[in-house]
Order: sequence, then C-alpha cells, then structure tokens
Amino acid sequence: MHEALRKYINKYASTEIGDDDFELIKNKFTAKHFRKNQYLLQEGEVCKYVSFIVKGAIRQYSIDQKGIEHIVSLCTENWWVGDRESFTMLTPSKYNIDAVEDADVLLLTKADFQELVGTAPFFVASLSAMDYNYQIAAQERIHAAISFSAEERYLNLLANNPALLQRFPQTMIASFLGVSPETISRIRKKVHQ
Amino acid sequence: MHEALRKYINKYASTEIGDDDFELIKNKFTAKHFRKNQYLLQEGEVCKYVSFIVKGAIRQYSIDQKGIEHIVSLCTENWWVGDRESFTMLTPSKYNIDAVEDADVLLLTKADFQELVGTAPFFVASLSAMDYNYQIAAQERIHAAISFSAEERYLNLLANNPALLQRFPQTMIASFLGVSPETISRIRKKVHQ
Repeated sequence: MHEALRKYINKYASTEIGDDDFELIKNKFTAKHFRKNQYLLQEGEVCKYVSFIVKGAIRQYSIDQKGIEHIVSLCTENWWVGDRESFTMLTPSKYNIDAVEDADVLLLTKADFQELVGTAPFFVASLSAMDYNYQIAAQERIHAAISFSAEERYLNLLANNPALLQRFPQTMIASFLGVSPETISRIRKKVHQ
Repeated sequence: MHEALRKYINKYASTEIGDDDFELIKNKFTAKHFRKNQYLLQEGEVCKYVSFIVKGAIRQYSIDQKGIEHIVSLCTENWWVGDRESFTMLTPSKYNIDAVEDADVLLLTKADFQELVGTAPFFVASLSAMDYNYQIAAQERIHAAISFSAEERYLNLLANNPALLQRFPQTMIASFLGVSPETISRIRKKVHQ
C-alpha cells in the first residue's frame, strides 16, 4: 500500500528515492481502511492527520445551520486530504471529511509531519509539489466560483477534471460547484443532449 | 525597505535570523516601486516574479470576454502576490496584477526562489508559513464562495479582514466577493444603518 506513496514521491523528486530514504518516510505513515460513509474527521474535532489517498473517493464539507452540506473538496487517488487550518493551527474544525467510496489512506500526524520536514529532503520536495498543486487548484477554483456562471463551472469541471463526475454523485457535484442539483440536471441535459 | 522582509521572516522563524543569513536572502530580492495603476503582470505574460508587498495595495484579476473584471486576490502589506500557476508551470497567465495604490514591493525571480529553497533554511521556514497562510485563506474563500449568500460573504469579510474594506473601492470589493456592486451597496446600507 505504501508503493503508491513511493510513486508519488518519485514523480516530484529530481532523482529516484532509495530504499533507506523511503523507509524513513514510510515508517511515519499509518495505513488505514475507511468503509464508505466512515468519517476521517468530524466537525468540532482537531484535524490530527493529513491523509494521502491510495484508493477511494473522499469529500470535505461543512454543514450549515439549515442542515445543508457545502463541499469544499472532492478527492481521489494521489491527493491529500485534511483541514489545513485545523491541522496547522490546532483549532476545532468546521469541516467533516468522510469516505464516499471505500478508501485506503496513509495517515501522517503533525509531529511526524514536522519531523519529516526537518529530516527527509524527498518528503520536502513532494510536499512542495503538493502545496503548489493545491494552490494552483485553489486559485482556479476561486476564479471559477467568483467569475463563472453555473454552466461555465460545470463545463470547466468537465474539461479539467472529468473523472470527478464519474466518481461522485450528481448532488455532491452540485454542492462542490455551489449550484443547486436542479441546475446541474438542467445543464447536464443541455450539454449532453 | 528590506527590513519588512526581515520582520516577516523573524515572525515565522524559531530563532531570530542573523545578519549573514539575512544578507544571503536579501540580495536575491529586488526592490521596485509601482505607481498606482501600473502593472506587475499582464494577461498572456509568464509570471516571472513572486512579490513581497512592503507597502501599498495590489489586486490580481482576470477580464472575461465581456470585459468584466473578476478579482481573485486583494493584497496589502506583508502578503505575497503572483500568479502561482504561471510562476510554477511557466505558462502564460490569464491574470493581470496591478497596483491599486502606489506600492513598494520586493521581487524574487524563479531561479533565485529555487536557489533560496535549496540554501536558506530561514527562507524555507517563512515560505512554508506563506504557503499555509495562503492555503488556509484559499480554503476559507472557497468555502465562503460556495456556501455563503452575498450578505454572509460581506459580513465574513467585515469580521475577518475589515482593513480590505478601507483599502479597496467598493466596486473591487464586489468583484472580489463575486457579487454585483448594487448588491454590495444594498448590503452596506442594511448593515451599517
């Protein structure tokens, strides 16, 4: 199961990681299986782990006072999931994170995260890649949210990340895009007719 | 002018940075003044610098086919500004970055950025802080964009970042929040009455 992490690290390393260097990193990650609907994090808890997704589909969302879910992230293989604010600041999270499909993840605690940052250059390189991938995706997502119509947001997702449309139900896609499920239905009919 | 950068670095360092270590970092940053309305980056160019804002107010925005501006970032002192996607991937930017007030900034090229990442632990520590501050702000902004009403978005900004409301004109605040200027006027009247 740690092989996926090794591949991920090699993807962003300037040279391939050796066994000893990987051993050092691997030992800090705990493998865990989550069944569909199980929580990785619940609102009000401090986010103790960042999780690397080996297999499965996971979402991060808040629930407002009316009980409506708002999905900030939809994540699949080779993405990291966690509440960045809670993990960094040790504050109670306003988010829930749960498995939309059965999922295999590798968990890393904050203490181990910080130790790796200080001792494992290969980890630092892939962390930097993760940070930039996240920042680029976030910039794109903010741009879409403030400047695109509902239809443009759907078409943008279809163009740039069509796999998500296959992995997550339509109601979650709607919440992720910040539009109503009815609007998504209408757009899908129009686009795919 | 580099003193603001030194303060910023010390804010995130575990021990205060010494003169020699700071000299190494300082020499990579070029000080530049931008007059109000001058561009740091124009759409179609590759973003060659990340800029640390010493003084002034700067915005990052796209212009759509109808000529409407969509503001993804409003930045003031002690923030970094740059198109993260273009800077990282060397792709032409879809954004413009310009000065809303006269601004003093410190520019860092990608080559110098990468050299500092490899040689200056103090820079790496503040870079990490910058990345996490950005990620936390981005997560918050995505959450607000998909789940808050126009009025909630304005109140959220008023609660968490009231200084921005003083520094940027109302039309820019509206674009930043992804709502019409008329809606902002209406909300302001209601909130501040």
